[in-house]
Amino acid sequence: MLFVLRARYRANTQRFKGKSVTQHDKKLWGGRFAEATDGLVELFNASVGFDQRLAEQDIQGSLAHVAMLGQVGILSAGEVEQITDGLHAVLTDIRAGTFEWRLDREDVHMNVEAALRDRIGPVAGKLHTARSRNDQVAVDFRLFTKQAALDLAEKIRALRAVMLSEAEKHLPGEVILPGYTHLQVAQPILLSHWFMAYVAMLERDEGRFRDAAARMDESPLGSSALAGTPWPIDRHATAAALGFARPTANSLDGVGSRDFALEFLSAGAILGAHLSRLSEELILYSTFEFGFLTLPDSHTTGSSIMPQKKNPDVSELARGKAGRLFGNLMGLLTVVKGTPLAYNKDLQEDKEGVFDSYDTLSIVLRLYADMLPKTVWHADVTRAAAARGYSTATDVADFLARQDVPFREAHEVVGGLVGLASRSGRQLWELTEEELRAAHPLLGAEVAQALTVEQSVKGRASYGGTAPERVREAIENARRALEGERR
Amino acid sequence: MLFVLRARYRANTQRFKGKSVTQHDKKLWGGRFAEATDGLVELFNASVGFDQRLAEQDIQGSLAHVAMLGQVGILSAGEVEQITDGLHAVLTDIRAGTFEWRLDREDVHMNVEAALRDRIGPVAGKLHTARSRNDQVAVDFRLFTKQAALDLAEKIRALRAVMLSEAEKHLPGEVILPGYTHLQVAQPILLSHWFMAYVAMLERDEGRFRDAAARMDESPLGSSALAGTPWPIDRHATAAALGFARPTANSLDGVGSRDFALEFLSAGAILGAHLSRLSEELILYSTFEFGFLTLPDSHTTGSSIMPQKKNPDVSELARGKAGRLFGNLMGLLTVVKGTPLAYNKDLQEDKEGVFDSYDTLSIVLRLYADMLPKTVWHADVTRAAAARGYSTATDVADFLARQDVPFREAHEVVGGLVGLASRSGRQLWELTEEELRAAHPLLGAEVAQALTVEQSVKGRASYGGTAPERVREAIENARRALEGERR
Amino acid sequence: MLFVLRARYRANTQRFKGKSVTQHDKKLWGGRFAEATDGLVELFNASVGFDQRLAEQDIQGSLAHVAMLGQVGILSAGEVEQITDGLHAVLTDIRAGTFEWRLDREDVHMNVEAALRDRIGPVAGKLHTARSRNDQVAVDFRLFTKQAALDLAEKIRALRAVMLSEAEKHLPGEVILPGYTHLQVAQPILLSHWFMAYVAMLERDEGRFRDAAARMDESPLGSSALAGTPWPIDRHATAAALGFARPTANSLDGVGSRDFALEFLSAGAILGAHLSRLSEELILYSTFEFGFLTLPDSHTTGSSIMPQKKNPDVSELARGKAGRLFGNLMGLLTVVKGTPLAYNKDLQEDKEGVFDSYDTLSIVLRLYADMLPKTVWHADVTRAAAARGYSTATDVADFLARQDVPFREAHEVVGGLVGLASRSGRQLWELTEEELRAAHPLLGAEVAQALTVEQSVKGRASYGGTAPERVREAIENARRALEGERR
Amino acid sequence: MLFVLRARYRANTQRFKGKSVTQHDKKLWGGRFAEATDGLVELFNASVGFDQRLAEQDIQGSLAHVAMLGQVGILSAGEVEQITDGLHAVLTDIRAGTFEWRLDREDVHMNVEAALRDRIGPVAGKLHTARSRNDQVAVDFRLFTKQAALDLAEKIRALRAVMLSEAEKHLPGEVILPGYTHLQVAQPILLSHWFMAYVAMLERDEGRFRDAAARMDESPLGSSALAGTPWPIDRHATAAALGFARPTANSLDGVGSRDFALEFLSAGAILGAHLSRLSEELILYSTFEFGFLTLPDSHTTGSSIMPQKKNPDVSELARGKAGRLFGNLMGLLTVVKGTPLAYNKDLQEDKEGVFDSYDTLSIVLRLYADMLPKTVWHADVTRAAAARGYSTATDVADFLARQDVPFREAHEVVGGLVGLASRSGRQLWELTEEELRAAHPLLGAEVAQALTVEQSVKGRASYGGTAPERVREAIENARRALEGERR
Repeated sequence: MLFVLRARYRANTQRFKGKSVTQHDKKLWGGRFAEATDGLVELFNASVGFDQRLAEQDIQGSLAHVAMLGQVGILSAGEVEQITDGLHAVLTDIRAGTFEWRLDREDVHMNVEAALRDRIGPVAGKLHTARSRNDQVAVDFRLFTKQAALDLAEKIRALRAVMLSEAEKHLPGEVILPGYTHLQVAQPILLSHWFMAYVAMLERDEGRFRDAAARMDESPLGSSALAGTPWPIDRHATAAALGFARPTANSLDGVGSRDFALEFLSAGAILGAHLSRLSEELILYSTFEFGFLTLPDSHTTGSSIMPQKKNPDVSELARGKAGRLFGNLMGLLTVVKGTPLAYNKDLQEDKEGVFDSYDTLSIVLRLYADMLPKTVWHADVTRAAAARGYSTATDVADFLARQDVPFREAHEVVGGLVGLASRSGRQLWELTEEELRAAHPLLGAEVAQALTVEQSVKGRASYGGTAPERVREAIENARRALEGERR
Repeated sequence: MLFVLRARYRANTQRFKGKSVTQHDKKLWGGRFAEATDGLVELFNASVGFDQRLAEQDIQGSLAHVAMLGQVGILSAGEVEQITDGLHAVLTDIRAGTFEWRLDREDVHMNVEAALRDRIGPVAGKLHTARSRNDQVAVDFRLFTKQAALDLAEKIRALRAVMLSEAEKHLPGEVILPGYTHLQVAQPILLSHWFMAYVAMLERDEGRFRDAAARMDESPLGSSALAGTPWPIDRHATAAALGFARPTANSLDGVGSRDFALEFLSAGAILGAHLSRLSEELILYSTFEFGFLTLPDSHTTGSSIMPQKKNPDVSELARGKAGRLFGNLMGLLTVVKGTPLAYNKDLQEDKEGVFDSYDTLSIVLRLYADMLPKTVWHADVTRAAAARGYSTATDVADFLARQDVPFREAHEVVGGLVGLASRSGRQLWELTEEELRAAHPLLGAEVAQALTVEQSVKGRASYGGTAPERVREAIENARRALEGERR
Repeated sequence: MLFVLRARYRANTQRFKGKSVTQHDKKLWGGRFAEATDGLVELFNASVGFDQRLAEQDIQGSLAHVAMLGQVGILSAGEVEQITDGLHAVLTDIRAGTFEWRLDREDVHMNVEAALRDRIGPVAGKLHTARSRNDQVAVDFRLFTKQAALDLAEKIRALRAVMLSEAEKHLPGEVILPGYTHLQVAQPILLSHWFMAYVAMLERDEGRFRDAAARMDESPLGSSALAGTPWPIDRHATAAALGFARPTANSLDGVGSRDFALEFLSAGAILGAHLSRLSEELILYSTFEFGFLTLPDSHTTGSSIMPQKKNPDVSELARGKAGRLFGNLMGLLTVVKGTPLAYNKDLQEDKEGVFDSYDTLSIVLRLYADMLPKTVWHADVTRAAAARGYSTATDVADFLARQDVPFREAHEVVGGLVGLASRSGRQLWELTEEELRAAHPLLGAEVAQALTVEQSVKGRASYGGTAPERVREAIENARRALEGERR
Repeated sequence: MLFVLRARYRANTQRFKGKSVTQHDKKLWGGRFAEATDGLVELFNASVGFDQRLAEQDIQGSLAHVAMLGQVGILSAGEVEQITDGLHAVLTDIRAGTFEWRLDREDVHMNVEAALRDRIGPVAGKLHTARSRNDQVAVDFRLFTKQAALDLAEKIRALRAVMLSEAEKHLPGEVILPGYTHLQVAQPILLSHWFMAYVAMLERDEGRFRDAAARMDESPLGSSALAGTPWPIDRHATAAALGFARPTANSLDGVGSRDFALEFLSAGAILGAHLSRLSEELILYSTFEFGFLTLPDSHTTGSSIMPQKKNPDVSELARGKAGRLFGNLMGLLTVVKGTPLAYNKDLQEDKEGVFDSYDTLSIVLRLYADMLPKTVWHADVTRAAAARGYSTATDVADFLARQDVPFREAHEVVGGLVGLASRSGRQLWELTEEELRAAHPLLGAEVAQALTVEQSVKGRASYGGTAPERVREAIENARRALEGERR
């Protein structure tokens, strides 16, 4: 019957191939059921195919729980020791890859507990005193998500550092890049300035993940099924043992909320949007037509049919992966929408998206941190491109405006000059003095100096602007921020 | 270095564990590259972790291609035979699970081709004459998606048939269910009528998948990289061999478009929305508070902590899985957005969502087809619920309107009666004759007959209405449609 | 209290400014209510701010309904005439812009009916005999959506025709464009071939809208609240009068389903994805760096600060508008997810997205139909670009393969030549005979002929390929299809 | 030609009806253009239909800019005064509703500036010195979004306060509600505990908006087109004047980033998900079947056909509005995806979604703050429901576990008892002593005391649990937090 199931269902079956699906433990909740669970249902319900990834967190949570049960006198010291040793042994098996994950044991929690029972006997049953699978999954998943958020924050920081170093690297040479709006050359900027724009974006991205981690830094363990428990447990102790700042304040909320995962996925989607913009620019800049940079051979691939191709695959994939990041967010928002409190089985759908967004971002962040320093920028090409397209026209307008010509009038004068030049296939500096004077009496040979891209860049010295001194300042500030704000 | 990679990246490594990642073929496109691909890049780019699922389609495509190369004289009969035999041998290995998938061989196409070369030597290289990976992936994925669409259409039809049988089963007993609007009891209906509403939805869902399959029934094979090929190939022959209605008419479009996958995912998202509505109703109806039905033990589960629980997990998960169906669609829309023609590596992100939506819908459709016939409806409870809530008030209003009282006035009269009854905790039929007359002179004891739910149901005999004779007709039409329209 | 409300809520208030919100009709459903509706609730619930757009459809529906009520004898001929004349008068007011839309009358249906009552007195109340607002809104919205789908299909067809004409226009000159994969020059193609790729996409887009229109071509009118009606109505008559193919077969489904709107939005999102790809290409091609085309002044704009700018605003906005098209679809999928049958107030959220997607696509389709014929392509630039980047390298590989060198080996030989040429800053045809021979004994001066882009294009004569004769054929077929398939 | 345009395009035309679209200012960027903008293009590009909402922010920004231009000596005191007075006059017109918005003036910025010029003559042109529309729109929209985020934070806080008061109100009576998992009665809880779960969620929602506001608290003004400006402006001064914490550090980022809007929309989508859960619960609880509460007449509506209906429209709409909140987020993510730096016209699509999400959440938050205190809970019904469904079964299991029966064994014993009771239609406390003893020797009459819902609730005294003392503590903490954390 299972032959129709594919993909992760197939992954399930493959992983469990060779074991009869009828080889079953008695279901831990089977007491009131007259009929066995349908095989297809079991496959559909089972989450062990993906939540085994939470094994470390699950055992961490159990260790904290059992230690606390001992401290408050619910379990004896001997029981605590037996269970603790057993859990460590199970963890060792899992790490070694020798643990046998069983589909009929539904999920990571039941697999671990059953393995514990196989190993230490009925005393294992005492581990589940004063807790429920609902708070187990809540605590496991929150531990994972918090760690993932902090890990991504670190990886973003690493990429920030790389970008900052690139900005520093290209500053002495004052490498000039065309600045675009509407993908039309607008004004020349420093390449370092361009890198610093991404440094600023990544800084906010990092902040979003850190804020999310701080907001979810609460242990739901001890919420039990949804109402708390009559056992005299110490939730502050387990929270502390697990590295949480505090326990959650409401048991219904503790087991039933998933906004922490939504916030993680949101931060991931926004980061993904930023990475897609970076990717788009690198793809454009590495075309024959732009020719601004050469990506390292180590990070590009070729074509099976066109021998000349050198494809920016990493950037294309990184751009495309915005899709799954947005999709994962949309997916979980949909899952949560309209579900009553507290836990509903729908919520089992919360994990795969978080895992996937985490993995995707981890690898993209690392690849960019590796790739950018190996990317070669062609300063001659970028400078020439920046000079093209009348990119210093604004400077002429500003020149006039500084002579008290209202900016709007100045703009129009220069617009006319650009029209004249472009219709005759010339650059602005190729216009004759007569043509300039005809356009406006204040214009003449002396404006030529406003027309080099270097001069233009140097001039834009407002705070946050592209003038070398400003960019140097910005780099220094960013360097300090990067080193100082470490938490 | 690979230790940071998780989930499907981990899946990749696990699947390839034990083999050095440096054990490499020479890359098939490596000629112009001075530096080797970075290991992390290779892992990131490789699609073999998921596109090996297209192995059957890939070999089908190759068999059709090589046969055609023979027919048009590009390959000799001997070469065709050698390659064909080799491909069959590779397919046998894959089916047997003995095929060694290698990450360094990137994708399913390269894995298959390299295995062929390992087996039959350099002649294998001739298979790739007059084609490109771009058209290989286009044809493989289109074959898969078309088959998936037709398979889902069949599974929808099977569920339609089950729903129709349920409608037939409950018709003789004239089981009455409350019809809701705003989740407030509105008017009584037949349970069979409720089933027929889903039959209608599923019929359109099936239509969407069939339309999608018909629109994508075109073979891109022979589009080559993007421009066609100078080889004298016969695309009509390969299209026919692969069961396609025709070849695509434009090579750029053939390799670069993914609207077929988007249409598949859209049909899946809409179907998922319908299944989420069905699920919501079953979850509600199986609560203690509604108590309309009992789900089979085989399709429900218990709680690890609350021994009394019987949870409608299948329906909850089915409702929650709308999330991934919507997310997969959003994901691929995002991927395609703003990408230039023809192929971009972003498009590699097209497959996992399609696989996942297909698998998800396959299992949910099957589970509902299994579960619904085993679900027990409590006709006494549903009838009582239908009688509650003044559900026949409209019938009184209609009674007045038929005596030529303008409907709006009639509505107001009955609204007043409902207010009166509800304030005194009575049902409409418990109002006194005086109270009725006071509300409107045309009202009296004789309206009581309009107030039973059976009478109300019987009365609604307009086409498509809930009267038993109408539902019987609807069932007959649906039965005919189901049997007749087979394609 | 209302001051906090903004945007469309503000639109509501602005539109109704000067009228006291306490100027109220008695609510048509007020009979059982002791307390009046809260003002803010009224504002929140009212849909007249946007559903007045359905006024034509609403009156059409009412005219069909009242005519039928007369035919089956529920209303007298005199009543029918009175109501019909009244409705026509109301419609005249609406068209003239003199109709007073009132927020306290909630929605378009109540506004029209109340205006009718104001005009013809209590007989107006008889119009609502045997129908409900639920089926009114269902029929109005379905009429609108079907018309919108057919209208977009026509507009897509118009753009197809424009694209086809452009393909024809550029065919005689055999204008050559670089074909890209990964945005790297891959192989030269005809500009006409590029246009034909979009013709193919648009043809499928049109098909999706036509299929959607056909699937929703069912009249829900007469479903009444959800269960049908006891009145002896003739649903086939109203369906026919409104131009529907048939009535819906199930009343619950008729008032409760919105998959027709979802299918419309899906087709719109996919079309939007295609238009975003076209837009991206036009934006790229109009940069200084590509320089392939000049967009008409009439369809570009300038900059308030940079006088030289000429921005491809139409294409940028068209690309960006994919956002709202995807968002509208995700929005309605979310609305429908998990809602029980039949009507829920949530469904009121179905309209704005459909209106918005329709409007957005209408204008973008028209703008492209206007803009493309005025766009000037620079054939010299595109040809030069196509020649760059070793785009004919595949042709050399094919040349070798035709001499019986296995393609994979040929590929590698040419890859080496490309590497040699690119390292020394030359094109392939600038390699010396010695260098060629050294790479492979079969290579020599005679391969030069394979290296012009014209030769390359001419050679790719497989069905669907870019060879001029193939493109001519494709244009002829598309022309026939466009003219023949008219429905 | 404009007749085809609908909805917001229609809104545009309607708003401008009566004025010839050919009545044009000279375009402010028209210098280099030979041909006039197409009328349809103008309509498509114009944003004044929606961005006029930023008029206050735009004038605020201009006032700060002109004051600074005076301070640094770019403008004379007289010029500053003229412009300042003119801007105030324009603002007065706008507030009075007498301002004439013109479509041909494209956007709010150009409309305001042109009106200024009409009023004070050419000196108005000096206002645009040292700035660009790009930084104008960036600063206007950031001001709006920051204010909107802070305003929503306040409204969330107001709803938190209402929820907290409700929790306090119901605490003395110890109103008991069934706690659900899987929508199956799980364990009894206090109604106050349920309210506190939403207090916890809303607290985090508020935090997300405040974090977003803090992260976007940067003034982009002075970034100019993208590169900064050569004018000696003081960006710190304008930032301070506008109430921003600091200027943005990079000009490219300042004008090109939209993550602040994405973060706002994300926080809104997550809040919307929470409100949809609350709504779902209120809808369920107000059904006849649950019967837990009565919504106020002021916040419900009736039916046009079914006089007995009382519909929870506010909650249904609030639930449905999750759709647009998710859609707005997906829309803007799509817009940003893959766009190169800095500004692209696509970004004009950023505003409507933010406006819409803000308005939607504003009204829903207010409606719930009004409605919840007027909602009547039926304590007898909720208590009875909580007692149903063997909700105290866990307590029996815990009773056994406390006697040292391993929890898993205890669970199974009680599962058997539940099965026994449910098969015979009894509650747990109706089982005989013999039946209890037969299930486990430790069970007997004394366990009956564990079976009342009051006892069960009282027992769950773990931190965060539902015991009255714990809930009282939680309320006190939340009250303190609400009052203390005010920023």
